Amino acid sequence: MPIHEIGDQSCAVARSIAVVGDPWTLMVLRELFLGTRRFDDLRVQTGVSPHLLSVRMRALTESGVVERLPYQQKPLRHEYRLTRKGLDLWPVVMALKAWSDRWADWPEGRPVRLRHHGCGKVTQPQLTCHVCGEAMGPQDVDLEMSEAAVAERVRRSQGRAA
Amino acid sequence: MPIHEIGDQSCAVARSIAVVGDPWTLMVLRELFLGTRRFDDLRVQTGVSPHLLSVRMRALTESGVVERLPYQQKPLRHEYRLTRKGLDLWPVVMALKAWSDRWADWPEGRPVRLRHHGCGKVTQPQLTCHVCGEAMGPQDVDLEMSEAAVAERVRRSQGRAA
Repeated sequence: MPIHEIGDQSCAVARSIAVVGDPWTLMVLRELFLGTRRFDDLRVQTGVSPHLLSVRMRALTESGVVERLPYQQKPLRHEYRLTRKGLDLWPVVMALKAWSDRWADWPEGRPVRLRHHGCGKVTQPQLTCHVCGEAMGPQDVDLEMSEAAVAERVRRSQGRAA
Repeated sequence: MPIHEIGDQSCAVARSIAVVGDPWTLMVLRELFLGTRRFDDLRVQTGVSPHLLSVRMRALTESGVVERLPYQQKPLRHEYRLTRKGLDLWPVVMALKAWSDRWADWPEGRPVRLRHHGCGKVTQPQLTCHVCGEAMGPQDVDLEMSEAAVAERVRRSQGRAA
């Protein structure tokens, strides 16, 4: 399967991967959540080449994750801001951060701490059930797959295109 | 910056991206969390080519995300299982799922629902503060960056390698 067809699977994870699941796009998202808005700053802080970055920013704009707004008229200059849809990607970036906070080596200490406005404490975001509020992990849920999704998986296992 | 150098940044997000932040690896993680364990099944359900898949599985094994275990002796066959470190990537996959559950179009309904064992309800995992339990979004935290991390960002903005 060519990589651009990932999003054709009727799987919510696959569809997100098709939009934001490449390394440079994820680096750009990190940077946008740190407050960086201008093309050159995004380029310098992520290390992505100007060409690849402009391809990524166009795709993110087209998919409604960022909007491109003028911040200066003469000469005309634009900056990028996360939309509501883009801000909703925060859990993705936080989950990536939390994983390396836990599993990577940090001889000089962890680079970024989060302090929660609500309680004033240094926090680690955790996944909880939105109904009962309990912390949840992969062992704590059953997956209920729709008939259409099951059928698609069966078709793939039988070697036919989904 | 070449892509394999992403993980050299002293940023937890970047280090996670270097290990799991490419589309095929994320697709493989989705599949492992669905319970798929064998190479051919991973290949069929993700759509990744055999060569790329074996490169990815080797990398995931080397980084301790999966372990490769024999499930049959004659002929010898192996399967892959998420380690504790790998299971800790669940929030990444859930965050990707939640985003498309919310923002993609699902004319035939959403493909996978999660039912929480604890309360028995269909749930959406949400990010909460591990101290006070309140739901958290990007507006609810201050980022406190270490001196080393700030210095690295300044070096990058001055055009020197970090």
